[in-house]
Amino acid sequence: MRFKAIVYVKLKEGYSDPEGETTAKALKGLGYKVIDVRVSKAYRILLEAADAAEAERLIEEMSQRLLSNPTKDDYRYEISEVEC
Amino acid sequence: MRFKAIVYVKLKEGYSDPEGETTAKALKGLGYKVIDVRVSKAYRILLEAADAAEAERLIEEMSQRLLSNPTKDDYRYEISEVEC
Repeated sequence: MRFKAIVYVKLKEGYSDPEGETTAKALKGLGYKVIDVRVSKAYRILLEAADAAEAERLIEEMSQRLLSNPTKDDYRYEISEVEC
Repeated sequence: MRFKAIVYVKLKEGYSDPEGETTAKALKGLGYKVIDVRVSKAYRILLEAADAAEAERLIEEMSQRLLSNPTKDDYRYEISEVEC
């Protein structure tokens, strides 16, 4: 079976986010009243798995091993089955 | 009033995504049966606006002017009011 997962990886609160700060500065420079900007990443992953439970186990593993840095990142994901 | 917007910016289909390709290669190298990986960005923006309609207008403008490149990116957003 084929699954689509979207894994959102963001910096934990308290970690400075230079890209977000630069974006906020640029938006303020354009005249927008922004208070704060934080930037995160979303990985859209298509994968093969025997069933939904295995897909979730695999995505959890990938998130911990490769997609996030547990010291500084939080992650969450959504998984859905897709037609081949 | 204060609003929180999340703006998702991703490459249009057809544009190659080197970061996604590298991530897919790394995941395959770890033994995962991934078919494809695409990476996108999410901007979480806190902003001041008079009402929800103005917040949406501002976020639409920011998305077009600064957060996305209309040639190669698609974007979508969610906006919600937040307590100050």
